[in-house]
Amino acid sequence: MFRLSTYRMSLHCLQVPRLVGMKESARELLAKNLRELRQEKGWSQDELAARSGLHRTYIGTVERAEQSITVDSMEKLATALNVKVSRLLEE
Amino acid sequence: MFRLSTYRMSLHCLQVPRLVGMKESARELLAKNLRELRQEKGWSQDELAARSGLHRTYIGTVERAEQSITVDSMEKLATALNVKVSRLLEE
Repeated sequence: MFRLSTYRMSLHCLQVPRLVGMKESARELLAKNLRELRQEKGWSQDELAARSGLHRTYIGTVERAEQSITVDSMEKLATALNVKVSRLLEE
Repeated sequence: MFRLSTYRMSLHCLQVPRLVGMKESARELLAKNLRELRQEKGWSQDELAARSGLHRTYIGTVERAEQSITVDSMEKLATALNVKVSRLLEE
């Protein structure tokens, strides 16, 4: 029988070394900052997409660190969020 | 007759509004920071290429703000230069 609780626990254990031992990648850092800044504004991904001129699904992939965003797109997001572009990569 | 001095002067005049009135783009900011950080180390573009795993001609295009670099490549450059990735976009 497949037990979800066991599955979740093993996943959790797998993630521990990553959380405590590995440096966050720039892509992950940006993903986290972007999500936080967007949520501080109370904006959905749709709202940020409309304000930045980027596509909502693209913003989703960036917030999940699935895509390596370019500096030009970072600038569009920073302008929409009214922050300096370096803020998106701050630790 | 084509006069180089006139050509240079008019180019200069065209650039003035850009220099005094317009905000530097993120791409230009990164280009300037990258060149400065590389030169502080006394490294050629070849040297930075070898240390970052990126191609020398690619680094050249980034330093001339001709190319919109990705966050993954920015991270490679920052690691080679031993700076935080946000440093590449600082004003």
